Amino acid sequence: MNCRVVLVEPIYDGNIGSIARAMKNFGFDDLILVNPCPIHDFGWAMASHAKDVLERARTVRTIEEATTEANLVIGTTGKRLVNKQKHLRLHLRVPCLTPFELSEKLKGKQGVVAILLGREDIGLTSQELAKCDMLVSIPTSQEYPVMNLSHAAAVLFYELSHLEGGNNSLASQESLRLLHEKTRSLLRAICYPEHKIEYTVLMFKRILGRTELTERETRTILGVIKSLRWQIDKVQSGRK
Amino acid sequence: MNCRVVLVEPIYDGNIGSIARAMKNFGFDDLILVNPCPIHDFGWAMASHAKDVLERARTVRTIEEATTEANLVIGTTGKRLVNKQKHLRLHLRVPCLTPFELSEKLKGKQGVVAILLGREDIGLTSQELAKCDMLVSIPTSQEYPVMNLSHAAAVLFYELSHLEGGNNSLASQESLRLLHEKTRSLLRAICYPEHKIEYTVLMFKRILGRTELTERETRTILGVIKSLRWQIDKVQSGRK
Repeated sequence: MNCRVVLVEPIYDGNIGSIARAMKNFGFDDLILVNPCPIHDFGWAMASHAKDVLERARTVRTIEEATTEANLVIGTTGKRLVNKQKHLRLHLRVPCLTPFELSEKLKGKQGVVAILLGREDIGLTSQELAKCDMLVSIPTSQEYPVMNLSHAAAVLFYELSHLEGGNNSLASQESLRLLHEKTRSLLRAICYPEHKIEYTVLMFKRILGRTELTERETRTILGVIKSLRWQIDKVQSGRK
Repeated sequence: MNCRVVLVEPIYDGNIGSIARAMKNFGFDDLILVNPCPIHDFGWAMASHAKDVLERARTVRTIEEATTEANLVIGTTGKRLVNKQKHLRLHLRVPCLTPFELSEKLKGKQGVVAILLGREDIGLTSQELAKCDMLVSIPTSQEYPVMNLSHAAAVLFYELSHLEGGNNSLASQESLRLLHEKTRSLLRAICYPEHKIEYTVLMFKRILGRTELTERETRTILGVIKSLRWQIDKVQSGRK
């Protein structure tokens, strides 16, 4: 399991350096910065002996670029209740796990897991969170739930560092994209109401997203969709 | 279980503030500073919405003052191997747990647990660690094991915040002191070699320290020592 850390628009270079250090402390080194602030002396100083992690960090413009090859995209949030309500309203449940639960879920899996860490002031937006496969939130005191960004990162890395590699390769983004495309096309083929198609595809994406599909499982589902299409097309061409 | 955080001679006020914030994030508020550096604006800024924790923090001169009423004293260290060897050599094993193992050990217990966090540069000295009942060390990468002090604190608080209170009151420092005194006196009474007494008392202290004795258990052991003394005194007075 390769853990990729994606810092989304960090404001303070001290946090970038601190997070690089915490990454190296727990054996991670794949850092991507999305529109970061400039890194000055303080940021480099906070990285301490993890300057190599900072040097190798890639800078990109969008979360999409940062997560292209990721098999699973995990959003982090402190806004548990707010999001819960919003997601309930949208019927697009993104599961929100504790770091321990996430670590349990990822045990024995293989692939790239991108962990998105949001801005120091507003975190990740609801839109950004809604695009993630899963969310993770650290259980904190209700009196003062907002953690320092690099502290939250350290706690996550601590839990995820227990992970041992496994043989169950997670589905590639490419296979997942193919799956969504085939699902959409299948819905069209069965004359599913056009205005409900995108919403339903998104809901399937959510449902499958939280099952951490393996590549093999994805191929099997694609095979089933292919058989379905084959039968449907046969019936429909018979009717003509 | 009340968790007391003892910062031993912190050098950077930013870390003091950061740790106060992490404490409040996880519901802790008992902070003691041993010979700290002065806290300037940066330290207060890092405390963010946990300035109340910083305001209530007590400043003392020695670790002993900071831990007087503690039922259990836990030292933190990144120097796992070094200490292991030293302790093996001394035959005075202080168990070194992971944060998770510590949290498991403290489940259902009641009392004050003092967590000692050492200096940013040299941590806690071997002498300071040897006086603790238990040690805790965060499993980190061998390549770069040295964590930022406030990050290590956040990881510890995260693990310890899962604890729910229990009914098993840990032995008070007073009962433990009485136990060590009675043990020493018992050894004298049975003419144990004088030069081995202090070492043996210390070894007993270690053995009992890592069992997290409850108040009730301590009273029982004291009762047994009393009976032993009574019999020994009777035999010895009969001989005279």
